[in-house]
Amino acid sequence: MTDVKTLYAQLKTGELTSKKVTLQGWVKTNRNNGTVGFIELSDGSAFKSMQIVYEKTKINNFSEVDKFRTGSALRVHGELVLTPDLKQPFEVQATEVILVGDVAEDYPLQKKRHTPEFLREIAHLRPRTNTNIALFRVRSELTFALHKYFHENNFIYVHTPIITANDAEGAGNVFDVVTEHKNPHHFFGKKASLTVSGQLHVEPFALTFGKVYTFGPTFRAEESNTTRHAAEFWMLEPEMAFTDNAGNMDVIEASIKYAVQHLLTTCPDEINFFTQFYEKTLRTRLEALVQSKVLRMTYTEAIKVLQEAQANGTKFQFNKIEWGIDLASEHERYLCEVYTNGPIFVTDYPKDIKAFYMRLNDDGKTVAACDLLVPGIGELVGGSQREDRYDVLKQKMAEQGVDQDLDWYLDLRKYGGTPHAGFGIGFDRLLMYVTGIANIRDVQPYARAYGSIKY
Amino acid sequence: MTDVKTLYAQLKTGELTSKKVTLQGWVKTNRNNGTVGFIELSDGSAFKSMQIVYEKTKINNFSEVDKFRTGSALRVHGELVLTPDLKQPFEVQATEVILVGDVAEDYPLQKKRHTPEFLREIAHLRPRTNTNIALFRVRSELTFALHKYFHENNFIYVHTPIITANDAEGAGNVFDVVTEHKNPHHFFGKKASLTVSGQLHVEPFALTFGKVYTFGPTFRAEESNTTRHAAEFWMLEPEMAFTDNAGNMDVIEASIKYAVQHLLTTCPDEINFFTQFYEKTLRTRLEALVQSKVLRMTYTEAIKVLQEAQANGTKFQFNKIEWGIDLASEHERYLCEVYTNGPIFVTDYPKDIKAFYMRLNDDGKTVAACDLLVPGIGELVGGSQREDRYDVLKQKMAEQGVDQDLDWYLDLRKYGGTPHAGFGIGFDRLLMYVTGIANIRDVQPYARAYGSIKY
Repeated sequence: MTDVKTLYAQLKTGELTSKKVTLQGWVKTNRNNGTVGFIELSDGSAFKSMQIVYEKTKINNFSEVDKFRTGSALRVHGELVLTPDLKQPFEVQATEVILVGDVAEDYPLQKKRHTPEFLREIAHLRPRTNTNIALFRVRSELTFALHKYFHENNFIYVHTPIITANDAEGAGNVFDVVTEHKNPHHFFGKKASLTVSGQLHVEPFALTFGKVYTFGPTFRAEESNTTRHAAEFWMLEPEMAFTDNAGNMDVIEASIKYAVQHLLTTCPDEINFFTQFYEKTLRTRLEALVQSKVLRMTYTEAIKVLQEAQANGTKFQFNKIEWGIDLASEHERYLCEVYTNGPIFVTDYPKDIKAFYMRLNDDGKTVAACDLLVPGIGELVGGSQREDRYDVLKQKMAEQGVDQDLDWYLDLRKYGGTPHAGFGIGFDRLLMYVTGIANIRDVQPYARAYGSIKY
Repeated sequence: MTDVKTLYAQLKTGELTSKKVTLQGWVKTNRNNGTVGFIELSDGSAFKSMQIVYEKTKINNFSEVDKFRTGSALRVHGELVLTPDLKQPFEVQATEVILVGDVAEDYPLQKKRHTPEFLREIAHLRPRTNTNIALFRVRSELTFALHKYFHENNFIYVHTPIITANDAEGAGNVFDVVTEHKNPHHFFGKKASLTVSGQLHVEPFALTFGKVYTFGPTFRAEESNTTRHAAEFWMLEPEMAFTDNAGNMDVIEASIKYAVQHLLTTCPDEINFFTQFYEKTLRTRLEALVQSKVLRMTYTEAIKVLQEAQANGTKFQFNKIEWGIDLASEHERYLCEVYTNGPIFVTDYPKDIKAFYMRLNDDGKTVAACDLLVPGIGELVGGSQREDRYDVLKQKMAEQGVDQDLDWYLDLRKYGGTPHAGFGIGFDRLLMYVTGIANIRDVQPYARAYGSIKY
């Protein structure tokens, strides 16, 4: 038994010659002219398929094989033949083609283009399309690349809890976790929710191990249906002791570049596919990112840029641009799509529009935050240096009306606290960024959004 | 800036000489004799600490430094000095010791032994004890090792959903996910729960990519407080197309051996610590596991072994041992602790005590299941070949009263289904197994169990 990926790897190292092989996979297409037929067989080991050639004179069930439908599972014995003159470097001359799993005639994935909306309704079959064969390998490789980066840099991976009694953002919009008991909060004895962020829970580990991260599912019960929001999504959240906001940005930039470089190296076929069918500039954009230095600009500077743009005729829907406003998506996109045409950090936002745990700057008005804005997405990463002064943090919590029991979080400022900083990468948005797929529902195995759940 | 891990790595490669260093970390102990003092500084980069020597004549704030308490955060400038005659290979002769973060006098982690129960109450400070510095690095390395194994073997990592409309085990005991809306199921429009397993959701991906896995949090709302059960825990669930139960066991065994070998290589200090303080035979046991071939025995054979043991005088609490019973924990432990004194696979259980999705064997009575039993834990892994015959699966679902909407799951048997198999490793139990820590609450960052939630 071998697989397509192994054969391509052997081809590359020059150790491949014609030889007997057995492959297993699924039929993408099957056509024949009465004496010779061609099956495009996908085994999922690689983006590429294998062409299986079957001839009436060489297999004893030609009249069965020529009826095997798209979606059938097959086992194929045959000879691998190098075909240096064809588009594909090799093909398999079948000696035996065995039907392992038939496919019913009503198979929804016939060979044609399907809309993303249609495919979302059949999430259990959707992985089999070319887009999804490419996408889910990229999703897997991107995850691995991020783990690898943080592992190589001696970060400890912490599994922060999904069910929590705290709410990091203090923003509401949480899902509650209950049982069918008459008191819904019977199980834990108090209200419990799905986490919106692992940050608060990972900070104690940063103050032990120095460098840590959490990477897992997070949740928002927002009753909106945008292309960039999901009820359930994965978030990567590193946290570093003895680190300020500048050091924070260094790690954001390095980790994303590392992950993108990993994709360019390990998934060239997939990136080419997305470049061809989803976003013509994708490969160029990713290659440029790896080479470039991400610009850094304060919020105050960003407001000036936006005001100048407005003065020069750019129309914004939210047109009251002045210091203190929360940047709207259109503003963020202007900054990274028009002003720099590439990723940009915006730092030092007004304290009133940012979370309570961000460190107050010496000006008393701004906090040491850093958002990474990228074209097509807007905010991809949000980070900050954390408020490490007990009294300042306590006062900010009071000012912002944080009424959770966070004594334990305050404790960290009392017992050997240090300057520390961290950030959160919305993993699904990063995946949109590296594939050009425009809707978050189409980069998740089973998207969860307001108004629907199947599976 | 450097860290303890880097210095030990440089020592090993022989590139370390006396040199100026800056370290940052936390005080574990601080003692002095009036003219010279010793700080044991932990920076979390490694299990080992660094000894900082400070002398009255060499630093200008001796009388402050000698009061720095356990738990304080420090920055230390000094000279690294090789000390081949001492227990530790080097130490730092301080030239400057700066207090970065003071510690209040009521710091709960004074230098003494604390009970696990006490430490669970202060989960935000608990990481700082020796046990937890060892544990959470092992937890991180074990996770990485498993990702690495499956990545190297070309498995695709799939993020199966946490919120689900299905219930893999059909066993009840699920947490529901609601919002504060007057109709608690308003958000999704129907009842939604926290996943008990990603298996059903990952199977569609196996039937595309061939080899896949999911690795994430899973949940059980069981109102029991045992040392081996938690309300929230991580599970690793691989799934492979074109694979039977024997092939399944090959992968279980190979992946666990790989992960254990990774720990022996990357965490020798931590494994030695657990061997010294938690389980004297730990290192030997882990080394033996890597070398051994795990025995395989059918359920029917296991029943005979237990009956013989009983006949020979072994007392069991559940003493009605006959074909058809579900094995109790004591039975499982007899098999792996007394009978083999090592891990053992038990296969081919009666169909009535196993889940509906397991493949019915030709005998019509048993299913192609495989449980891996290990000393001290009992069931560590549960796996099976999946029922791939549409009609048989449909009938088993009816027999076992599975009333979920699983048409999509049945579809997989209709559209290019193949023999396939998979398994689930309870990650937290695996961590107990490789550390000798006896309670699942003590291997999780923030344990979730019946009756309590803090944090």
